[in-house]
Amino acid sequence: MFSRSKFAVVLTLAAPLALAQALPERALVDDLVVANRILAHEIRVLDAYGHVSVRSKSNPNRYYLSRAVSAGMVTAADIVEYDLDSNPVGGSKGDGYLERFLHGEIYKARPDVMAVIHAHSPEMIAFGASGVPLRNMIHTGSFINDGVPIFDVRKFGGTADDMLIRNPVLGKQLATALGRRTAVILFGHGVAVTGNSLATAVSNSYFLNMNARIQMDATRMGGSVSYLEREPGAKPSAAAPAGAGANNRAWEYWKRQVAGEIGAGR
Amino acid sequence: MFSRSKFAVVLTLAAPLALAQALPERALVDDLVVANRILAHEIRVLDAYGHVSVRSKSNPNRYYLSRAVSAGMVTAADIVEYDLDSNPVGGSKGDGYLERFLHGEIYKARPDVMAVIHAHSPEMIAFGASGVPLRNMIHTGSFINDGVPIFDVRKFGGTADDMLIRNPVLGKQLATALGRRTAVILFGHGVAVTGNSLATAVSNSYFLNMNARIQMDATRMGGSVSYLEREPGAKPSAAAPAGAGANNRAWEYWKRQVAGEIGAGR
Amino acid sequence: MFSRSKFAVVLTLAAPLALAQALPERALVDDLVVANRILAHEIRVLDAYGHVSVRSKSNPNRYYLSRAVSAGMVTAADIVEYDLDSNPVGGSKGDGYLERFLHGEIYKARPDVMAVIHAHSPEMIAFGASGVPLRNMIHTGSFINDGVPIFDVRKFGGTADDMLIRNPVLGKQLATALGRRTAVILFGHGVAVTGNSLATAVSNSYFLNMNARIQMDATRMGGSVSYLEREPGAKPSAAAPAGAGANNRAWEYWKRQVAGEIGAGR
Amino acid sequence: MFSRSKFAVVLTLAAPLALAQALPERALVDDLVVANRILAHEIRVLDAYGHVSVRSKSNPNRYYLSRAVSAGMVTAADIVEYDLDSNPVGGSKGDGYLERFLHGEIYKARPDVMAVIHAHSPEMIAFGASGVPLRNMIHTGSFINDGVPIFDVRKFGGTADDMLIRNPVLGKQLATALGRRTAVILFGHGVAVTGNSLATAVSNSYFLNMNARIQMDATRMGGSVSYLEREPGAKPSAAAPAGAGANNRAWEYWKRQVAGEIGAGR
Repeated sequence: MFSRSKFAVVLTLAAPLALAQALPERALVDDLVVANRILAHEIRVLDAYGHVSVRSKSNPNRYYLSRAVSAGMVTAADIVEYDLDSNPVGGSKGDGYLERFLHGEIYKARPDVMAVIHAHSPEMIAFGASGVPLRNMIHTGSFINDGVPIFDVRKFGGTADDMLIRNPVLGKQLATALGRRTAVILFGHGVAVTGNSLATAVSNSYFLNMNARIQMDATRMGGSVSYLEREPGAKPSAAAPAGAGANNRAWEYWKRQVAGEIGAGR
Repeated sequence: MFSRSKFAVVLTLAAPLALAQALPERALVDDLVVANRILAHEIRVLDAYGHVSVRSKSNPNRYYLSRAVSAGMVTAADIVEYDLDSNPVGGSKGDGYLERFLHGEIYKARPDVMAVIHAHSPEMIAFGASGVPLRNMIHTGSFINDGVPIFDVRKFGGTADDMLIRNPVLGKQLATALGRRTAVILFGHGVAVTGNSLATAVSNSYFLNMNARIQMDATRMGGSVSYLEREPGAKPSAAAPAGAGANNRAWEYWKRQVAGEIGAGR
Repeated sequence: MFSRSKFAVVLTLAAPLALAQALPERALVDDLVVANRILAHEIRVLDAYGHVSVRSKSNPNRYYLSRAVSAGMVTAADIVEYDLDSNPVGGSKGDGYLERFLHGEIYKARPDVMAVIHAHSPEMIAFGASGVPLRNMIHTGSFINDGVPIFDVRKFGGTADDMLIRNPVLGKQLATALGRRTAVILFGHGVAVTGNSLATAVSNSYFLNMNARIQMDATRMGGSVSYLEREPGAKPSAAAPAGAGANNRAWEYWKRQVAGEIGAGR
Repeated sequence: MFSRSKFAVVLTLAAPLALAQALPERALVDDLVVANRILAHEIRVLDAYGHVSVRSKSNPNRYYLSRAVSAGMVTAADIVEYDLDSNPVGGSKGDGYLERFLHGEIYKARPDVMAVIHAHSPEMIAFGASGVPLRNMIHTGSFINDGVPIFDVRKFGGTADDMLIRNPVLGKQLATALGRRTAVILFGHGVAVTGNSLATAVSNSYFLNMNARIQMDATRMGGSVSYLEREPGAKPSAAAPAGAGANNRAWEYWKRQVAGEIGAGR
């Protein structure tokens, strides 16, 4: 578990170099708490279930994830450091999410991914069951043009009563289904969404749900629906610079919206 | 009515054995207040109408249920102890819900049921009228694979102007329709949802509504919908251990979300 | 305008008889403020537009209605007393709603009606345009079995750019369309809902919108929809006693929910 | 940037004439802050993205628009004065929205327009993709009878990964697509809504989304939908006086609803 007191010690005793390393990680942990609260209370991508992680900036073989509490009540004291096998670093302190392997195996397979969100989004579950592929409707959802595959854990040993990504093997299969894409639907369960930063993963999850609702609404009108398909030969969405500034703007706003509850220790 | 002063007396005068019995029930009553507030204000399964009860842990022939006030304003002082014929124990103090027989008769018929929720969920009423059976869409709704029957009180004497489960006979008919399942839709009225604990009944009611909305969304897309059917020979959902930890996690979060309003006496 | 100071005088100087008359009307005005806030902030039947009135209990030829401000900010000081021609009693103080004739003409035509709500409910506008009749889906919407007619003001001189019930003639035509029923849809505009008490009008408006959403959801599933039709020879819904207790329960809860904002002068 | 200190100086040193000019603009800037907060927090037309501007009353060749922050956190200190080429007056202070040209070019082309809103409304994106034209459903949406054209920026050089109105040429093309109408849908992106006042633009954006949801609901019921078409020879909607009072009423209410957060510096 990521402990305040440990960092207090670091700040007191460490050499300038250690200090320089410690401070960014503390900021990263604080941002992870903010992401949990944004996802739960501001953009409502997470309900009482689901989780968000971020890869360490100082060690790409580590990631941060809360112990098993709901995102809407995560504090810095709940954050645990994991290795990419999803074992807690320095021994376990409290329960981890059973599905933490979803995070670890995606980080292993995708060095470009810096943050992962697992949500039980009803929109994503509906699309996963609908027989209709999710297609891009909005310029901020351009990554959907890469495809959003559907992963059915029952093909790998899951059952209707237990769909959890509860071990590294299932996590690896999910990461394989994700491939080089941004998101993968978990049939009957939810979604995993990635980003090259925490803010980008958060906004990707927001736009993914928004795109799904728009596609549902457009489709049900009975007309001939037009999709926002990427031009032949266009670069993949990760290279598009347009969203970067807007992502920062949204992050700053959403962060401010949840700052009160975090500051008040709620 | 469950009285604070009565318990004050117990705590002062009773022998340790009585004390040991009294404390769990007080905690149970407090949890029932929490469940009322969660259902009304956090997961919105109840509006101004509907109610939730819990079976006594010390006496399986008793259950606790609020007097007839809206769930969003129930306090410990409103809780009444009932026998399984839905008569208040120790005489009536204030009005009881006209439909309390729904609770009593289910407890009689189902010794495994520890909590019952009756809600006017629009999703459930819509499914009850739609001619389309509710089917399982999400791993946390696996109990839906047992079926969600539709009970029409008009076959037992109800009318379009009075659909209430207002006596033991109607309650028993409803319990018979429920059978060994987790939930039963009341045509033109709402739903009754059970659980082997208060937290499980609450999360079951949450997932039941979520499942219904997902099925609606998936069905309306015009594709070929896939359902999450239980594997042949699989154990019934009540035996599935996967949800237990997650149910506790959600309960702890939802409880925290309503703690403020309860603590402030709102 | 209904003035606090005027009543202060009454309370100080008046004989017991005058006092007995004054107090119920003050309570009625307070209830009307509560109804405005419930409709705007708790059950969301009114947005920034629309209004609610109540007939005087001491004089059936008078009714109370706010001056032209949004329901969510109405206070007792905003309430105006009108005669049934919708002229302010004792001279005008501030602007009245242009559509107050909707209220006055319904009170004239329907001595049993004690409260009227005019809302721009999207659900009602959608049904008015859909070509599909609203039908009863829920036991608390039994009055829908009386029919919910659609009034098109353009047949009486209104235009697409001005659909307001802005004079007694249009108000009378609307009252005629309503007939002995509980509610009437205003095509392209909204709805008028009545009740034999303020609490009943409020709950009727709540259940009317809920019924509409349930019918939409049930209809779109693609199955054969069942409606909750009244039994042949059954009494009209107004005679049904079942809802009375539940209406009071809901009113007490909703009132408590908005008490804070009223008490704080918001 | 519109600076408080600059106005403090004006108030201290300026002659009465200058003072008379300064005060209305300060009120306009304050109203623009209110509009930002209403759109973000009260009527939810804007999420973390999108913006609203108002034309200067003292100089029709100037408009006010926030620097690039989310509408829900805009304060008076964030407001920038732009010329109609969308260059900041007096030099840049902080980042401007990349899409500010959408505002400037509409003001150039439409002297009657006093306020512009750009929103990512899901309803508008859905209609833009649906192949079904938006049609008027509500009397307060009469301007929809003028038509709501769909602008596809890809015809003018945009791509699926960059749909922004990021230069004057694209802004001018958008203004041409808008023509004399009130609103234009940006395919795969959102909408631009205008008004002859800030309050009117805000209410137009509210009714546009409401109209879209009503049309969706009415269309999906399977019946024969009726639209609220303008009578042959009727004046355009801008001339209709009916809405003016109601617009003011809504503005006063919405303004009051967000006054707390602005006053508290949130």
